[in-house]
Amino acid sequence: MRGVLPRVAIVGVGLIGGSLGMALKNRRLAQTVVGVGREIGRLETARDLGAIDDLTTDLATGVHQADLVVLATPVPQILADLPRLTSLLSPGAIITDVGSTKGQIARAGDDALPAGTFVAGHPMAGSERSGVEAAHAELFIEATWALTPTAQTDTNALARVRALAQAVGARTLVLDPEAHDKAVAVTSHLPHVLAYALSALAGEAANSTPHLYDLAAGSFASATRVAGSSPDLWQGIAFSNRDALAAVLRAFRTDLDATLAALESGDASALQKQFARGFDAKQSASSVSP
Amino acid sequence: MRGVLPRVAIVGVGLIGGSLGMALKNRRLAQTVVGVGREIGRLETARDLGAIDDLTTDLATGVHQADLVVLATPVPQILADLPRLTSLLSPGAIITDVGSTKGQIARAGDDALPAGTFVAGHPMAGSERSGVEAAHAELFIEATWALTPTAQTDTNALARVRALAQAVGARTLVLDPEAHDKAVAVTSHLPHVLAYALSALAGEAANSTPHLYDLAAGSFASATRVAGSSPDLWQGIAFSNRDALAAVLRAFRTDLDATLAALESGDASALQKQFARGFDAKQSASSVSP
Repeated sequence: MRGVLPRVAIVGVGLIGGSLGMALKNRRLAQTVVGVGREIGRLETARDLGAIDDLTTDLATGVHQADLVVLATPVPQILADLPRLTSLLSPGAIITDVGSTKGQIARAGDDALPAGTFVAGHPMAGSERSGVEAAHAELFIEATWALTPTAQTDTNALARVRALAQAVGARTLVLDPEAHDKAVAVTSHLPHVLAYALSALAGEAANSTPHLYDLAAGSFASATRVAGSSPDLWQGIAFSNRDALAAVLRAFRTDLDATLAALESGDASALQKQFARGFDAKQSASSVSP
Repeated sequence: MRGVLPRVAIVGVGLIGGSLGMALKNRRLAQTVVGVGREIGRLETARDLGAIDDLTTDLATGVHQADLVVLATPVPQILADLPRLTSLLSPGAIITDVGSTKGQIARAGDDALPAGTFVAGHPMAGSERSGVEAAHAELFIEATWALTPTAQTDTNALARVRALAQAVGARTLVLDPEAHDKAVAVTSHLPHVLAYALSALAGEAANSTPHLYDLAAGSFASATRVAGSSPDLWQGIAFSNRDALAAVLRAFRTDLDATLAALESGDASALQKQFARGFDAKQSASSVSP
């Protein structure tokens, strides 16, 4: 965004919202960052950590006279707040969000907010950690920040949010909300489903298999890392992308069935082919995005 | 192993074999380390990198007068070499291996080798990288090195291999071969199956979903890291643990089916429970092995 924004409201000052506040303040992109949240104590922590200047638990107070409102709560809360915002916004305010799914949110924003004022977005910069304690001003550097305008989105509003994302270090990617959701079902939501499922399976197996966790090394640690993510947060994300995620999960299960059939029938060649497909795709992907 | 071993033969000088050679030489645990392999050029590289002193492509020459023979080839090759070794070994030689599955190998060693001389083992220190170029002398430090004796295994031979593993920095764990295989089916083999399957699915989805890899962040990178592992190597590992891996894969599929049912039926609470099971197990596991 060209120039300094007089007032930015960040609704939800956790890992992403807090990191954005820090980045805006460190880079002097905003005069005042006001944090909006449910718990005053959490907001005070965010202020002490340098993520926000002012704080309030009241949405109306927080967004009053804000030039930019960033919705950084879990997806269901973003969907709940969008209709409430209309009557609270100052004229000329732009609204964006950082939710992990975009179809539902983009539609809800179009329905609820003044025409053109909403620009749905998703910085790909999460972590299994959460809360403002994990936030840092450099979180968005080199991260992809997806922006998913609709036919209603004002091009000037889009340009301003895009410039802001770039100003905090991100590479922006403008695409259709549904294309975004189809992609992250594969690259983000399914990995979380698999990590939770593997972690749960290991937990059960550990009851009957002695030393199971002693025999866990790097591949297990990588495969279950994001099982440390909040189940509530991820239930909200997965649920808001139900159809795309279910389709991907069905395709994944079909692939597992082929591996299982190769094991059960003793077909070493078919098993090798299953693994080689993944290996080849990994090599191609690495050459695309190193 | 108390004292310095005059002569150690390492059959297969890749990531694990090469790292063991380096560790033995750096810590002066062996006077001479001889590397046995298929390609003279690869063995020369291993020698140049300090993993071995002598080299040969002939198994008989390599193990002649060796006090300790370490089989560090892929699992199918270990199974193929075991019967060939008997006539080649010097009296008093101990044989161990570093294969990723232990049931088949422990049985094959008992069948093929002089009573008591074989101690099956598995250092949990792999990587998606392979080859002696990735080897380093510190690979085993703090790693778990499983040893899986059978009723036939000589306790003195077990004690000597155990001391050697500890001398290169590993924590040893003595357990039943079948218990080992059940555990690693969950902690190592299934994670590899999932990584290959997710990588393959993403590769296919990328054909129809623009920007898919641009929308891949940390969770995708972690979940597919080991899809960069050799498909041939992992076909051999998975195949040698067919029954245990198939059982685990069936259980995993049942769990995925429950997640899919929750998504399809719109049961947010059931979905949250699926994720929470994985999260809770992750917390318990972290408190067990930090």
